[in-house]
Amino acid sequence: MTKLWGGRFEKPTDELMERFNASIGFDVRLYRADIAGSIAYARALERAGLLTPEECQTIVAGLEQVRAEFDQGRFVVQPGDEDIHTAVERRLHELIGPLAGKLHTGRSRNDQVATDTRLYLLWEIDRLQESLTDLQQAIVEKAEEGLGEPGHEVIMPGYTHLQPAQPVLFSHWLLSYFWMFQRDGERLAGLRERVATLPLGSGALAGNPFGVDREFLAQELGFARLAENSMDAVSDRDFIVEFLAWAALLQMHLSRLAEDLILFSSPGYGFVTIDEAYATGSSLMPQKRNPDSLELVRGKTGRVYGHLMGLLTTMKGLPSTYNKDLQEDKEPLFDVVDTLAMELPIMAGVVRTLVIHPQRMAAALDDSLLATDLADELVRQGVPFREAHRLVGQVVRRAGELGVSLCDLPLAEYRTISEHFGPSLYQALDFQRSVERRSGRGGTAPQAVREQIKRAKLAQMGQL
Amino acid sequence: MTKLWGGRFEKPTDELMERFNASIGFDVRLYRADIAGSIAYARALERAGLLTPEECQTIVAGLEQVRAEFDQGRFVVQPGDEDIHTAVERRLHELIGPLAGKLHTGRSRNDQVATDTRLYLLWEIDRLQESLTDLQQAIVEKAEEGLGEPGHEVIMPGYTHLQPAQPVLFSHWLLSYFWMFQRDGERLAGLRERVATLPLGSGALAGNPFGVDREFLAQELGFARLAENSMDAVSDRDFIVEFLAWAALLQMHLSRLAEDLILFSSPGYGFVTIDEAYATGSSLMPQKRNPDSLELVRGKTGRVYGHLMGLLTTMKGLPSTYNKDLQEDKEPLFDVVDTLAMELPIMAGVVRTLVIHPQRMAAALDDSLLATDLADELVRQGVPFREAHRLVGQVVRRAGELGVSLCDLPLAEYRTISEHFGPSLYQALDFQRSVERRSGRGGTAPQAVREQIKRAKLAQMGQL
Amino acid sequence: MTKLWGGRFEKPTDELMERFNASIGFDVRLYRADIAGSIAYARALERAGLLTPEECQTIVAGLEQVRAEFDQGRFVVQPGDEDIHTAVERRLHELIGPLAGKLHTGRSRNDQVATDTRLYLLWEIDRLQESLTDLQQAIVEKAEEGLGEPGHEVIMPGYTHLQPAQPVLFSHWLLSYFWMFQRDGERLAGLRERVATLPLGSGALAGNPFGVDREFLAQELGFARLAENSMDAVSDRDFIVEFLAWAALLQMHLSRLAEDLILFSSPGYGFVTIDEAYATGSSLMPQKRNPDSLELVRGKTGRVYGHLMGLLTTMKGLPSTYNKDLQEDKEPLFDVVDTLAMELPIMAGVVRTLVIHPQRMAAALDDSLLATDLADELVRQGVPFREAHRLVGQVVRRAGELGVSLCDLPLAEYRTISEHFGPSLYQALDFQRSVERRSGRGGTAPQAVREQIKRAKLAQMGQL
Amino acid sequence: MTKLWGGRFEKPTDELMERFNASIGFDVRLYRADIAGSIAYARALERAGLLTPEECQTIVAGLEQVRAEFDQGRFVVQPGDEDIHTAVERRLHELIGPLAGKLHTGRSRNDQVATDTRLYLLWEIDRLQESLTDLQQAIVEKAEEGLGEPGHEVIMPGYTHLQPAQPVLFSHWLLSYFWMFQRDGERLAGLRERVATLPLGSGALAGNPFGVDREFLAQELGFARLAENSMDAVSDRDFIVEFLAWAALLQMHLSRLAEDLILFSSPGYGFVTIDEAYATGSSLMPQKRNPDSLELVRGKTGRVYGHLMGLLTTMKGLPSTYNKDLQEDKEPLFDVVDTLAMELPIMAGVVRTLVIHPQRMAAALDDSLLATDLADELVRQGVPFREAHRLVGQVVRRAGELGVSLCDLPLAEYRTISEHFGPSLYQALDFQRSVERRSGRGGTAPQAVREQIKRAKLAQMGQL
Repeated sequence: MTKLWGGRFEKPTDELMERFNASIGFDVRLYRADIAGSIAYARALERAGLLTPEECQTIVAGLEQVRAEFDQGRFVVQPGDEDIHTAVERRLHELIGPLAGKLHTGRSRNDQVATDTRLYLLWEIDRLQESLTDLQQAIVEKAEEGLGEPGHEVIMPGYTHLQPAQPVLFSHWLLSYFWMFQRDGERLAGLRERVATLPLGSGALAGNPFGVDREFLAQELGFARLAENSMDAVSDRDFIVEFLAWAALLQMHLSRLAEDLILFSSPGYGFVTIDEAYATGSSLMPQKRNPDSLELVRGKTGRVYGHLMGLLTTMKGLPSTYNKDLQEDKEPLFDVVDTLAMELPIMAGVVRTLVIHPQRMAAALDDSLLATDLADELVRQGVPFREAHRLVGQVVRRAGELGVSLCDLPLAEYRTISEHFGPSLYQALDFQRSVERRSGRGGTAPQAVREQIKRAKLAQMGQL
Repeated sequence: MTKLWGGRFEKPTDELMERFNASIGFDVRLYRADIAGSIAYARALERAGLLTPEECQTIVAGLEQVRAEFDQGRFVVQPGDEDIHTAVERRLHELIGPLAGKLHTGRSRNDQVATDTRLYLLWEIDRLQESLTDLQQAIVEKAEEGLGEPGHEVIMPGYTHLQPAQPVLFSHWLLSYFWMFQRDGERLAGLRERVATLPLGSGALAGNPFGVDREFLAQELGFARLAENSMDAVSDRDFIVEFLAWAALLQMHLSRLAEDLILFSSPGYGFVTIDEAYATGSSLMPQKRNPDSLELVRGKTGRVYGHLMGLLTTMKGLPSTYNKDLQEDKEPLFDVVDTLAMELPIMAGVVRTLVIHPQRMAAALDDSLLATDLADELVRQGVPFREAHRLVGQVVRRAGELGVSLCDLPLAEYRTISEHFGPSLYQALDFQRSVERRSGRGGTAPQAVREQIKRAKLAQMGQL
Repeated sequence: MTKLWGGRFEKPTDELMERFNASIGFDVRLYRADIAGSIAYARALERAGLLTPEECQTIVAGLEQVRAEFDQGRFVVQPGDEDIHTAVERRLHELIGPLAGKLHTGRSRNDQVATDTRLYLLWEIDRLQESLTDLQQAIVEKAEEGLGEPGHEVIMPGYTHLQPAQPVLFSHWLLSYFWMFQRDGERLAGLRERVATLPLGSGALAGNPFGVDREFLAQELGFARLAENSMDAVSDRDFIVEFLAWAALLQMHLSRLAEDLILFSSPGYGFVTIDEAYATGSSLMPQKRNPDSLELVRGKTGRVYGHLMGLLTTMKGLPSTYNKDLQEDKEPLFDVVDTLAMELPIMAGVVRTLVIHPQRMAAALDDSLLATDLADELVRQGVPFREAHRLVGQVVRRAGELGVSLCDLPLAEYRTISEHFGPSLYQALDFQRSVERRSGRGGTAPQAVREQIKRAKLAQMGQL
Repeated sequence: MTKLWGGRFEKPTDELMERFNASIGFDVRLYRADIAGSIAYARALERAGLLTPEECQTIVAGLEQVRAEFDQGRFVVQPGDEDIHTAVERRLHELIGPLAGKLHTGRSRNDQVATDTRLYLLWEIDRLQESLTDLQQAIVEKAEEGLGEPGHEVIMPGYTHLQPAQPVLFSHWLLSYFWMFQRDGERLAGLRERVATLPLGSGALAGNPFGVDREFLAQELGFARLAENSMDAVSDRDFIVEFLAWAALLQMHLSRLAEDLILFSSPGYGFVTIDEAYATGSSLMPQKRNPDSLELVRGKTGRVYGHLMGLLTTMKGLPSTYNKDLQEDKEPLFDVVDTLAMELPIMAGVVRTLVIHPQRMAAALDDSLLATDLADELVRQGVPFREAHRLVGQVVRRAGELGVSLCDLPLAEYRTISEHFGPSLYQALDFQRSVERRSGRGGTAPQAVREQIKRAKLAQMGQL
């Protein structure tokens, strides 16, 4: 087929330039969206009197056949098919003849491709939202499984700066990721509304001169709003940037969960074991079992950040309306969608198959984790916290000098440092009590964590 | 004052390390948020029975005095003030004595700084939202001014690929930016809700052991929700990343508007003149009047993108809860806020003072811009658009060969190419009629643009 | 074939994980490097006495057959081929039996893949260096063509801030890009040395226990140095980051050249025409001829920057030695190589086929471009430059008020502003003389530009 | 002082625009470079006959006085000082009168600021090179200290994927960072040559019309080459981008060293202790000793990457020659220089004061680390490595099932798996022998590491 635009040209395009210019290699995956958009557009042309009902029916039937050929893997891309729009129109022309040439009336590839991409993304957003929800579900299940018996919950050292800080419930740690993903879900729902803005009917940049009904188009295609300005409509790629920025944040959360799990499954910690189904070995070292799944998730953060930065760069300082630079929007979008479509179920699988080792966690509990509880004990006896903190700092130092734990430091030593210390101090040095005291909303007390799980379930049902 | 944490340390901090570690140089600007947070926290401690009413009152009065000292530029940062929290507590201690040491009961700098930063950002978001609205207002005003007389609207060449495409109204072009900024405003309102999530009461990571009422804190400080998990709360920096990503998109729009105005004010175009108030000269070339304001806006895109990428990088793969890496969140945030707080009013000023040159625009209208209208004319006579496009392509080529415009190409030449051409074709070659035909929603027809302005005003009032 | 590492595993890998983990989809293109590395390694094993000469010969012949199968497109990737190393070894095993299992003695995929990637990149660097040189050649040719006749050189307005600044030779403008690409070439030669550092013989991380001769390996494979530390060697990806950073700078230069050409070929300027072979049309607007080639080059800057940022992100904060995250290094590398391998010849083609319009340039020369020459004239009469600048500023303003050019402003008006002006001032207002005065090295005077072209040719021959 | 460029302007600059435009807030730190450049330029003007010797002397003396005022903190920036060039010229004018106005003859701020920035960076590069060398020195010292006794070297588990891989010397691990920094040093020396390219004498864009001797200027200021094209010279910021890319790679290495040290000093590993001088505590938890220095180093990676990405973005697609966007080049440069100037000595301090715990390392050695040695043993008995790997994989699995280490697995069990196992296998299971076998260049054998230290010292002296 000749190009869609060659009429005024006298010379052929440079051969390398043909390849450089062509987008069919990647935009072919838009075929369903492209055909859906064309079917809706044909109907709108009929309503505007530019197609007879019979013509419209012929075009729609032809497009459905083209779609079927794609669905069944029978569609053969031809050398001249520079993009999906050309490919579909070329095939339609083969099937129904010159009538195919009426489909593009008043439409430009500028408003067409923007519509296709939005439609594609709307569909993918719904799939990703499901995968995200499933990962959250896996977290809630594992958090419930990992709670342990009432009064004997599974406690692990909580870290800040990767140094032991305070005892926390294992489930509390895991649930912290639930809320990160919850924010991601909320953001995705928010941006979906903006994706669902229809550019079709904007033409190349100036609008449609044939009275095509854009409200009808929006309804047919499931868009919630119309783009309000045709020049904006054809070069608005905010929706992709916004999606990539969303993905970058989600990816950041995934990278942190991966990092925690890589650490906690390394022998220095040993709190959890990653299932063999998500690990691999070494070609040299026969004993190895590496958490490749998690490392790849962590590593792919670069890819996603890079795509965000790439598209932002491409868009920077572009003159208004369509410029060919915009063709660079699709590969990053597709790659990010594909990446997340793999990562989310894999992470859900890793979480679901995670084996927890409460004994290893218990073994890692050192009573210096209770230093804050000791200070709090002084506070309860009227010592200002700042002073209590200073005194317990001295206790820790003294215990270190003597090489004993806080539990084993004699009362006399405590009282050398402050006479506010009394025998009751030893009761403060209890991991279970320590966690139980953090009982406010969001705290690590078992009852608070159980409440948190309830709220997580409500959040999943959209009822929070 | 001694450090807030030195009790257990035997050695002094390395001097260079002191400087490396200190954040007071930049977090001092959080003082109002820090003090507001501490006042609310003091009241919560009173409600929890950890402070008497008198103690609470003394602390609050002391904090208000510290704030007054800051407000009046009388606060003197001391060498040991490693951050704003230490500085305020140190000064409070000087003013009210050891009682100051009770303020930090159950609180950590981890939940404190997260609260401060959110509070600061909430305030700044409201200011930025106003500046953004004012820029949109300036656009609407100039679009109204630039419409021209009914039936004789100001028409300019619309460009795609920086090549002339179709005639559009000057106001239509300008309004395309209104809608970009409208999306920015919508996104800012959306993320504001997530900023307004309270971390206070999460302690270092495990929650608050003193029954502090977090709902009360949220109400006092104007937060809409509570963080649901203390471990997440202290290291959640999504709100900053999200804000930076928002800023990156806004900045991208600003860079495009700047680019358009730089081009349109360059002598090759000459459609507009940038007011001298926003231009500067050259130290060497006496004739120069450069659009520095716009170039700086365009150039600062790098800064904003860079900060987004920087914080994303910092957060990548961090183990959960607080790590000192998070201290790197504030400088990019502050710099982006400052940058936008300058750019938005400057861009509004540039738009408001822009001088429009309708004659220069008219002079740039070339009737090849009407080639599409010519094809549309054939479509109205039943020629399929694809065929019409091809025929007009040949017309353009033929006119080029003869060195005449489309208007001046004789009918005989047209009819050599297609007998569908008749004398009516010359009526299609009219700029005013061309724009008038694009009359659907979002099109460039004068009535559509007037409607668009109405909708823009509704959007500004939140009524769209 | 079974995995290279499955011995200790009891459970199969999750199916999605298999796909997530596999790199064969992209690392297959390393096959030539992989096989070259294996042949060299087989020979080293022979030298170390771990293979007999016959075994070595069998292995080498087998590997050559595998390579031939790849070269001829006959190699069939099997489901279990998780990466190129596995695929090659699997096929070798099919061809020569268990002897294939000796090839991996003392080698790990960690040192193998690092070697493969370096070898691949060395080859590509040499190709890119050639393409870059050809682009520079095209620039020099066009600059010579565009010089014009001695004494009547082709002069265009030079711009700063996209506002007319001073007259310059067209060729001087074009040559400015020669030197950017010259720096790129110099940098590429510099980094090539670091790419040519051999990791092979480092094993998984600890080194080779079989006395394999690494100097021999380096010589066989054309490497210039040995990695000095095995733990560094297996996770050193500096060479890729450095290459991507190099590409980002080159890409930045390409984006600027593209921008200049897009502007200069837009009708507001019209200084040049892009050949049709590098332009495309519109599906809607029959008259369009868009510089898509240049827009794509400009747009692809995002892609290249993004890959740089992506890999930097992936590497950030990784624990030392090999982590699976490193598998993310290859796709950005390949994509950047492919992108540049298209862009460089296309840009060379655009430059070679560029049509220059000296008349359009001459028409754009406005004598305000000579304001600096006017000030220089005063300087020659003893007025300090700063004062001369101020006076000429007033002249420009006065001419603007009167609506005349500097040439047409009467002497009397000049003398109202300063009595240093005399009739000789009008001689300063000459474009040819203006350029001729900038005669120092690097200036725009015709003789300086001719000298510059000579130096450019010397630079190309490595003799500068 | 009036602006350097106000002559033709009729209206004052908008007040906010003044602030937006001004760079004095940050470029003031270029004062030494700016004055050095002006002194050289004054001398060049004298040589060109544009200044008398007396005038030149007066100007130079005046400039030296201005420098002294800056050095002594006595220079007062005035409201009109929009940048460092204006500030210096304004002050010079106050000191020596209108003669000051001759200094800018034929010079533009465009070539001036490019020269200043290069000069500044040349000086900073030399300081950074020293700091980097000192960090390498610290690593070599600690590696020597950490070697242990011959025959009883300090061995730790080497990790890949953060899972135990093979035993390595502690010093071997540490030295891996030496070579990363060695590459950084090499790259820095390489780019320094390109920084030392002189733009001065290029004027605003067209060159210098007064015969100023650029070779003389280069010699005076310590530049190695001249920029060959004036239009390139005034907007070439490659040298900053290249420096930032260099810094990004260095920063990536620092982040990895920081990560390793954070991990190895966390209680799960406990291989090293970070000195208190580089640690800080918690405001809430009295027991804490956090490696803040290392976390900040890791966190600042974002800052450095962000600045690189920011400047690349700013430069993308800029029209050629100077655009005001370029003013955005300095803040990222200064911030990166400042960041590295803190980090390098801090990291050197951390390494120098690091306490090594050989017992903790020894305790972490598990004989599964020797699985590869076991396979190598089979290889020595003629089993192809791939088969040996598979057999040892089964051994590891069997040992796991029986809950015994490889040492304690009875020979009978071994022989069930393969009859190639004989009693000699137990000799393979020895950590000291394992490391000793990796004796090739770059391997972890004690003699190889000692050789590596020698080579590191040679490299430091530039003799490798």
